[in-house]
Amino acid sequence: MKTLGRHFVADLHGCTANLNDPVFLMTALERACEVSGATIVDRSGHHFSPYGVTAVVIIAESHLAAHTWPEFRFVALDVFTCGTTVDPRAAFDLLRNELGASRIEVREFVRGILPDD
Amino acid sequence: MKTLGRHFVADLHGCTANLNDPVFLMTALERACEVSGATIVDRSGHHFSPYGVTAVVIIAESHLAAHTWPEFRFVALDVFTCGTTVDPRAAFDLLRNELGASRIEVREFVRGILPDD
Repeated sequence: MKTLGRHFVADLHGCTANLNDPVFLMTALERACEVSGATIVDRSGHHFSPYGVTAVVIIAESHLAAHTWPEFRFVALDVFTCGTTVDPRAAFDLLRNELGASRIEVREFVRGILPDD
Repeated sequence: MKTLGRHFVADLHGCTANLNDPVFLMTALERACEVSGATIVDRSGHHFSPYGVTAVVIIAESHLAAHTWPEFRFVALDVFTCGTTVDPRAAFDLLRNELGASRIEVREFVRGILPDD
């Protein structure tokens, strides 16, 4: 059986970081790419009025995405990586620490389970 | 109980569409945004050599992302929308049809379940 990737879908509650700061959020995603060994190919950051930031980093191995709700101290975080050279858990662990989450609901999936043939 | 969003995490196998065509893939995501009522704020598309396309559309209500493996006729699709005005199922249904998937593993999540207070 061949598998293509791993995906962490995480809801982070009670975050102590400044969730309304797009530079902080993008920098955190970039650091997460670095520690996990991912190769960045594009970035997209958006600051919504008055509250909320979206930061997405496209990597050669899929993507990282974070959407924040500062008014609820909440972040919806996705770390999806493919291949065997990138460690998505390293990225996830860095981000949960950077965001200062006090409660986390995380689901980890294998993506792309291919049949043998 | 308040919830913030809905997320379809879908693995699409046996796709008959041309998965190595970045224009097709981005156009499909844009159409999915249209039918679901989402507002596009940015796009990022990448064509990897020799095979594979990534298309991500950032919407005001979160994001849509598709990563393709043409050599396996496989697409990893995410449709994540927030708020009550966007219907992620409409986007997902359009994309599964456009991609011509013959087998789908889909998980649907509620994101951002906030405690009452």
